[in-house]
Amino acid sequence: MLKEVQGGVCAAKGFTANGVHCGIRKNKTKRDLALIVSEVKASAAATYTQNLVKGAPLTVTKNNISDGYARAIICNSGNANTCNANGVEIAEQTCALLAKELGISSKDVVVASTGVIGQPLDITPIANGIPALVAGLGDHSDYACEGIMTTDTVLKEIAFEFEVNGTLCRIGGIAKGSGMIHPNMATMLVFVTTDCKISPATLQKALSEDIKDSFNMVSVDGDTSTNDMVTVLANGMAGNTEIIEEGEALDAFKEALAAVTKYLCRKIAGDGEGATKLLECKVCGAKDTATAKTVAKSVICSSLLKSAMFGSDANWGRVLCAIGYSGAEVDVNKVGVCFRSQKGSVVVCENGAGVEFSEEKAKEVLGEKEIEILITLGDGDGKAVAWGCDLTYDYVKINGDYRT
Amino acid sequence: MLKEVQGGVCAAKGFTANGVHCGIRKNKTKRDLALIVSEVKASAAATYTQNLVKGAPLTVTKNNISDGYARAIICNSGNANTCNANGVEIAEQTCALLAKELGISSKDVVVASTGVIGQPLDITPIANGIPALVAGLGDHSDYACEGIMTTDTVLKEIAFEFEVNGTLCRIGGIAKGSGMIHPNMATMLVFVTTDCKISPATLQKALSEDIKDSFNMVSVDGDTSTNDMVTVLANGMAGNTEIIEEGEALDAFKEALAAVTKYLCRKIAGDGEGATKLLECKVCGAKDTATAKTVAKSVICSSLLKSAMFGSDANWGRVLCAIGYSGAEVDVNKVGVCFRSQKGSVVVCENGAGVEFSEEKAKEVLGEKEIEILITLGDGDGKAVAWGCDLTYDYVKINGDYRT
Repeated sequence: MLKEVQGGVCAAKGFTANGVHCGIRKNKTKRDLALIVSEVKASAAATYTQNLVKGAPLTVTKNNISDGYARAIICNSGNANTCNANGVEIAEQTCALLAKELGISSKDVVVASTGVIGQPLDITPIANGIPALVAGLGDHSDYACEGIMTTDTVLKEIAFEFEVNGTLCRIGGIAKGSGMIHPNMATMLVFVTTDCKISPATLQKALSEDIKDSFNMVSVDGDTSTNDMVTVLANGMAGNTEIIEEGEALDAFKEALAAVTKYLCRKIAGDGEGATKLLECKVCGAKDTATAKTVAKSVICSSLLKSAMFGSDANWGRVLCAIGYSGAEVDVNKVGVCFRSQKGSVVVCENGAGVEFSEEKAKEVLGEKEIEILITLGDGDGKAVAWGCDLTYDYVKINGDYRT
Repeated sequence: MLKEVQGGVCAAKGFTANGVHCGIRKNKTKRDLALIVSEVKASAAATYTQNLVKGAPLTVTKNNISDGYARAIICNSGNANTCNANGVEIAEQTCALLAKELGISSKDVVVASTGVIGQPLDITPIANGIPALVAGLGDHSDYACEGIMTTDTVLKEIAFEFEVNGTLCRIGGIAKGSGMIHPNMATMLVFVTTDCKISPATLQKALSEDIKDSFNMVSVDGDTSTNDMVTVLANGMAGNTEIIEEGEALDAFKEALAAVTKYLCRKIAGDGEGATKLLECKVCGAKDTATAKTVAKSVICSSLLKSAMFGSDANWGRVLCAIGYSGAEVDVNKVGVCFRSQKGSVVVCENGAGVEFSEEKAKEVLGEKEIEILITLGDGDGKAVAWGCDLTYDYVKINGDYRT
């Protein structure tokens, strides 16, 4: 029983947020420093990129929340603070400066950065920006969301109300996506807040399970970022009995968490760098879930299919090709493919071979902003969904000259 | 002691070739049917795509050369003859029609197809085209090469002279590359001919080894084709003692084969769909060869790096990022990166962190048509080279509407 509500990361009780322009970016109209604060200590869980090259902030955050709790999240955009000689030092200074301003321990700060890799991050604009950042704290999830954006073109925020054993709780999240999106056991930047009371260990378990079906099934360009991070803060202010084990209460929480993460997945994929279309690949009939995931991910990652979708070209041979090289165990003679959008469905392949279809109808279906690629494998009941976007001129344009 | 010679697949004694327009393609100025013939039976070796979805011609070829010998190679472009209900039948008919015209056994024919997947291939134009194709056989490696091209923009052919135990031999090859290029234990279409005498088993072994360092290290877009095939015909007409085992003679043959395949790799990568630049990633200092290969391939496949190279942007953070997610065991704190072209070298990263460099110089170096990305890992003496190309507006344009 989920109900969408307003407020993003400030929807849950006891959370405030803000975002300011502190000067890391040259463009003065773009906020580049974001903050989320909980009135009380919150259970904290996080997952991080599996890239061997890890942003310095991830190291500091991991250490800070090793006790399972946090109070604040600070994140800058414009510089990833990665592959810098003094990255950890700068991230720690950021925590210390914020902690002092808020009157909390620096060990209760989650710190994150996103932007260019390998350029020294100056602490000065951050130090200068923190007082205004803290002073302006309020119901400003949108400011915080803007503060973590890079080449994102739309705000990505959402919140839901749900019930745990009769107690009303809220959960909300913001995300930054765009390019370098191909998460592996973690993802882009996602910050989720909830007033649901849940123990740190249970929260971490719920998050780690959730990302396998949410952020790990998104791909914009096959590049796994060095700074991927998903963090959830749960401050317990809703007043429910603390969730510490499996059961109905945890199921309700997981459902709400999944609603937030899957919404953000779709937003991240649809707003991939240069994207004009959201692609959703739904696989069913696989011999198991792992097979379905491998197939869905392979199709969503194919540059050839992504280009064809940009051109509204029903080139289903590329779907078959991507299934074939996915590494999954599939009987290609049983594969069926159907393209679907709000304009209707077109079956293009059955039993591994082409079927006649109307090119006109296909163009109409593929001309929409949200395209479903429905694949049936005929081998069992495994299923999976993956999200991606089309490949466009603008992806190349944005990334041909990102640093300047 | 290799010497480049003219003639492509006709450079070796006893080989003739031709290419005609038979009508599979609508454009009458584009040859779409190619033929290579050996005067005498030749040892035949081949490697095929690892894609589970395999073009029908591959099945027929595999069967035909299972005895180790062949006389002719026929290949059409414009239609991949893949994911069609009657694909094997059409490929077998093609072999039978050609065999009849040449007066050879249909079991001595290698058959291949390239083009759109999943559209029925009509035998009529092929049947009508074969008489002229055979009648025009001669020193026409270039016609054959044109006949196998799809979105390729340049002919890819090469030949070398080499010596085996005092006997002069020749080896030459043609290739078709462009999109859907991410070979896995096989590749795009490559046909190599030689008059060197070498047993089928030794030839197959030499080829299987060679592709690990050549075609398997090329990537244009990360999509592994359904119709990849490399075939070598060795007709023995040079008159050398048959090569049947390891030794100096085989080493000389392998060197010549590698010269042909690596030349074609560079041509295929540099002529990737929409490409404006050839990227060559050279990794050294890896703990072993496998690690070096994994790193080189990961870097060459990164859409972000490919876009940056298109824009001549020295965004080395993307090189580090691609190394980090490659899955290879690497100490990121030891990584060094240098960009190089005929305009000079620019060191951009040492010990995993950025170093100061002239942006102006970097733009000049990266403005060239052939870019080397030199990576040192500081872990041992493993090294590898991978070839790729930049990602451009035109890749998207070509693939947004490929079928029409």
